[in-house]
Amino acid sequence: MNDAIEGLQRRAAADSRVIGLAGGLPSVSQFPRAALARAFLGALTRPEAPGLQYGWPEGSASLRRRIAERLRARGAEVSENDVIVTSGAQQAIAIAVDLLCQRGDRIAVAPATYPAALELFRRRGLCPVLGSSGARAVYALPAVGNPDGRALSGHERRRLLASDVPIIEDDAYAELRWTGVPAPLLAAARAKVFHVGTFSKTLCPGLRVGWLVPPAKFRKRAVRLKQAGDLQAGSLAQEIVDSYLAATDFDHHLRRLRRFYRLRAHRMAASLKRHLPGWRFDEPDGGFALWVFPDVSIPERLLLAAAIDGGVSFDPGSMFRPDGAGQPLALRLCYSTLPAPQIEEGVRRLARAVRKLVPQGRYAGRPTATASAG
Amino acid sequence: MNDAIEGLQRRAAADSRVIGLAGGLPSVSQFPRAALARAFLGALTRPEAPGLQYGWPEGSASLRRRIAERLRARGAEVSENDVIVTSGAQQAIAIAVDLLCQRGDRIAVAPATYPAALELFRRRGLCPVLGSSGARAVYALPAVGNPDGRALSGHERRRLLASDVPIIEDDAYAELRWTGVPAPLLAAARAKVFHVGTFSKTLCPGLRVGWLVPPAKFRKRAVRLKQAGDLQAGSLAQEIVDSYLAATDFDHHLRRLRRFYRLRAHRMAASLKRHLPGWRFDEPDGGFALWVFPDVSIPERLLLAAAIDGGVSFDPGSMFRPDGAGQPLALRLCYSTLPAPQIEEGVRRLARAVRKLVPQGRYAGRPTATASAG
Repeated sequence: MNDAIEGLQRRAAADSRVIGLAGGLPSVSQFPRAALARAFLGALTRPEAPGLQYGWPEGSASLRRRIAERLRARGAEVSENDVIVTSGAQQAIAIAVDLLCQRGDRIAVAPATYPAALELFRRRGLCPVLGSSGARAVYALPAVGNPDGRALSGHERRRLLASDVPIIEDDAYAELRWTGVPAPLLAAARAKVFHVGTFSKTLCPGLRVGWLVPPAKFRKRAVRLKQAGDLQAGSLAQEIVDSYLAATDFDHHLRRLRRFYRLRAHRMAASLKRHLPGWRFDEPDGGFALWVFPDVSIPERLLLAAAIDGGVSFDPGSMFRPDGAGQPLALRLCYSTLPAPQIEEGVRRLARAVRKLVPQGRYAGRPTATASAG
Repeated sequence: MNDAIEGLQRRAAADSRVIGLAGGLPSVSQFPRAALARAFLGALTRPEAPGLQYGWPEGSASLRRRIAERLRARGAEVSENDVIVTSGAQQAIAIAVDLLCQRGDRIAVAPATYPAALELFRRRGLCPVLGSSGARAVYALPAVGNPDGRALSGHERRRLLASDVPIIEDDAYAELRWTGVPAPLLAAARAKVFHVGTFSKTLCPGLRVGWLVPPAKFRKRAVRLKQAGDLQAGSLAQEIVDSYLAATDFDHHLRRLRRFYRLRAHRMAASLKRHLPGWRFDEPDGGFALWVFPDVSIPERLLLAAAIDGGVSFDPGSMFRPDGAGQPLALRLCYSTLPAPQIEEGVRRLARAVRKLVPQGRYAGRPTATASAG
C-alpha cells in the first residue's frame, strides 16, 4: 500500500463518522466473548498456568491435535506433528515463503490477491507474477478468494495441482464458504502444499493464532524458522483457543457465522444494484467482501479521497494487484463489519461521491431515485 | 541447539521427576494472575472489543505511550511514535537484524550469549563473532547478561558506545537488576541503538509482548517488516498489558520481583558452594541464572544425560557460544523457577551425577558431607 493511500485509510479508520467498507475485518458482534472469557479464566486457574509461561516453538500439543483433527475431517492426512501453530496466517505464509523462495524469485499469484501477502513478497525481494511458469511457488486462496470471495473452479484447482510448483494454500476464509467447507488442496497433494489456516476470521483476530502444515520434509526447518522469528505463538492465546474448542460446538458456530456473513453479502449486493447499477461484481462464495468494477474511470486516489470526504471508505484495487495498478478501477467493499442499514448507507455515500466526481451527463451508471433522495 | 541436546532437554522438561535448572523461565508464582484477569475482563467488555479485533502493525498507541514513558524515566529521549510493539523480544531482535544485516555478514556477540539470538543469526546466514571489528552490528545485553546475569562494566559500555557499529541492545532482564534499573545504551546513542525490551520476564512470557525502538530513520521500514512478518502483535495481549500497567504500580511489582529472584540467586550460589565447591561462577547482577564453570572436564552431552538420569536438568554451555563449543565445560543453572529446597536438591543431584562420572580419587572438587548424605 503506498503512503498516500495508507494515510487516507488511517484517517478514515480513526473517524467515527466514516462508514468503513475497508479493512476486511470480522464482525465484533460475532466474537463469542462469554465463551472466550470462560476459556481465559480456565487457563488462568490451571496450577502451572501454561498459558502465561513459555511454550515450545511448534505450539501447544493439544491445540495442534485439534487442528489436525479438523483437517482430517476435510480429507487431509495430517497428524498433530505436522501442524505448527503460528502468530496468525500471515506468519505461516512468511515461513512458507522463507522456506521456498530466495530474493529475486518469482511467486505466482492471482490477478487480485491478499495485500499483506503481496507486501510480504515484496519485502522479501520476490517478484509476484501471474501464471506459474518460471515461478518458485504459487500463492493461492482456493476455497474463498480475497478480495473477490470466489472459490477456484474445478478446472482451476486441477490446473494448480497438475503443476510441479509448490503451492502455498491460504485457507483463511475456507470455513466461511456459504455452501460448506471444501477439501483443501492439502488433501490432494500433501508433498507440495504448504497449508495455511487461521482462527482470525472464525473466532477473532486479536488472539493471533494461525497454523502452517508444511510438507513433511520441511517441518523441522519450519519450526526452526518459527523459533528464530519470535520463539512461539502466544501461550495464552493458544490456551484460550484450545479450551474454547474443547467446550464448544465449533462447527455449529461456523454455520451461524456463514449465515450471518452471507446475509450481509446479499445486502451489499442489493445495495450496489440499487445505487450503482452499472458496477460489475460476482456474487461471492464466502468471506467478507465484494470485488467490484465501477463503470467510471476515475483515478482511484481521487475516488478514495472523495469517498472519505463523503463519509465512506473502501479498499482501492491497487492494494490487491501484483503490479500495484490502480486501473482498471476496482474496489474491495467489505460487508463484514456493518449492520444492513449501514451497508446501504455506505453504498449510498459511495454513489454520491462518484456523482460528485463525474458530471451527471457523462455518467452511465445513473443513480436511482433512492440514491438521489439519500 | 543440536538435535541430541534438544531431545534430552525436551525429555527432561516433560518428566516431573526431573528438577529443572534449565530453560530460563520466570517463576509461575510471580505471575500476577488476579490483576491479569481483571485486565482481561476489562478488555473483553469494552464495546468495540479492540482486544479481539485487528490492530495496527506498530501496536496499540496507549501501550506504546506507556513503554515510551518508562524509557524516558530511564533517560532515553523516546516518544510513543518511536516504539513498535513486537511479538516478544525475539521478534524485535529479528527485525533489527533484518534491517541491519545481510546473509554472510558478521555480527558481534559476547563469548556466551542468548541462544535464541544465536540461532536467529545462524538462520539468517550471519556469522556471530567475538569483537566488533568488521561486524555489521553488535548484539549485547548491557544491563543484565544472559547466561551470566552480569552487567557490562562502565569500561565495556563506553567501548561499545565509542564504536561506530550499530548496537542491538537486548534489555530483556534490565528491570530485574538487583541494584535498580540502569540507563539503557539507547539513552546515550539514540541514532545507532536498536533497543529491545519485553514484558516476558517481568509480567509473563505467554502474552508475547515486547518492543523495538529503532533509530528514527529505520522506523518506517521496521513497521513494514513487522507487518510483513505477522501483521501485528496480539491485540488481546497488548490490551491486557496496557490495562494491567494502568491499574498497577508496576515499579512496586518490579521491586518485589527483584527481591524474589535475588534471594533465589543467593540460595543457588550457597548450594553450589556447599555441594560443588570447586565450581567457579560470578555472583549475578540480576536475571534468572548462574553461569558456572565446573572443575572437571567431561563431555557436556555425557554430563547432561547423566544429570537427567539423576533427576536434574541444566542448559549446556554450547548453547550459548557463537561457535557452539562444549568446552571449556560450562553450564547455565536457572534458579528462577524453583523454591529454595528444590534449588538445593537440584544442585545436590548435579553433584551426585558428576561424582558418578568422575571417580572420587580423580575429582578435585570433593563433595561435602551434606552432599554425600543427600
